[in-house]
Amino acid sequence: MKLKYPLILASNSPRRQQLLRDLGIHFTIITQSIEEVFPSDIALNKIPEFLAKQKAEAFKELSTNEMLLTADTIVTLQNKILGKPQSEKHAALMLSDLSGKTHQVYTGVCLRLHNNFHTFTECTDVLFRSLSKDEIEYYIKHYMPLDKAGSYGIQEWIGMIGIEKIIGSYFNVVGLPVARVYDLFNKLDLIIW
Amino acid sequence: MKLKYPLILASNSPRRQQLLRDLGIHFTIITQSIEEVFPSDIALNKIPEFLAKQKAEAFKELSTNEMLLTADTIVTLQNKILGKPQSEKHAALMLSDLSGKTHQVYTGVCLRLHNNFHTFTECTDVLFRSLSKDEIEYYIKHYMPLDKAGSYGIQEWIGMIGIEKIIGSYFNVVGLPVARVYDLFNKLDLIIW
Repeated sequence: MKLKYPLILASNSPRRQQLLRDLGIHFTIITQSIEEVFPSDIALNKIPEFLAKQKAEAFKELSTNEMLLTADTIVTLQNKILGKPQSEKHAALMLSDLSGKTHQVYTGVCLRLHNNFHTFTECTDVLFRSLSKDEIEYYIKHYMPLDKAGSYGIQEWIGMIGIEKIIGSYFNVVGLPVARVYDLFNKLDLIIW
Repeated sequence: MKLKYPLILASNSPRRQQLLRDLGIHFTIITQSIEEVFPSDIALNKIPEFLAKQKAEAFKELSTNEMLLTADTIVTLQNKILGKPQSEKHAALMLSDLSGKTHQVYTGVCLRLHNNFHTFTECTDVLFRSLSKDEIEYYIKHYMPLDKAGSYGIQEWIGMIGIEKIIGSYFNVVGLPVARVYDLFNKLDLIIW
């Protein structure tokens, strides 16, 4: 299985890169930083798709048949965005907030083919059981989740011991809804067997 | 974080061993094969817990404070068990059966402390979207899922491209409901920080 045309992944996330690799897809990584701005009246759950498209639009000219994949993930709890923590103390507060509640992980994806943009959003519900102070401290000390939206990685220790249930796609919480990305490649007839 | 007493894992499954390792728990592996028999009138969803306990009971004498963990997993579709496939053709039939439907993955776990047995069952619902013949053939050829109940691994290619949604624990589908196992250690006061 391979893709018809060369693919560029515009993401620094090692987890996203690994997921695409595990899918057996060849790609190159080119990233550029953009200022992430969105309309103030946009619905929270539309922000990742908006930003993914913005990242794809800001990208340099693509050759005919060149493909570009961009993505953006947010974690929301009770209709507020939890970003990346600014300190270990901030991470501990965030994890206390998530403890015993269900939150949402939204990933927006944009696939750009030359100058056509295909976008979608995938949402997964995640339920943490009640986390103890010991557990939160142990996780932060040993896993340093300062690079992670919501202060946790589902594939790490805290995800393994603390997540009671998810509804939706697991890989979406890791960082990329690979089934939907594959499905888009498929529907656009971009896969060769 | 560590366990108060030495733990034996009685499982040949490399996925189960890896999950326990990722949890940061030290253990030794000792396996023995038993004949898996269960009452003919037992409910399907009670079989894994029954077999996990049977594996633990059949085990040699444990020293005081020695702990033993056993587990058994089944995949059921429309109230029938899907075991390990007997051939590639059988695997293809099983995956066609799973295609476009929700099935259940049940894992039964038994933790034996000297001669006390603690057991539970965890269930996860898994929804495959419609899988094409190309996808099923590609997966079987490249991943050889003959050692897997239900003919698939959720962490492998077919799980990544084909699973639309799960309800419950992802790690339960990989092979061990680690959050529940950890929770049991915690409730029995077996964890030292």
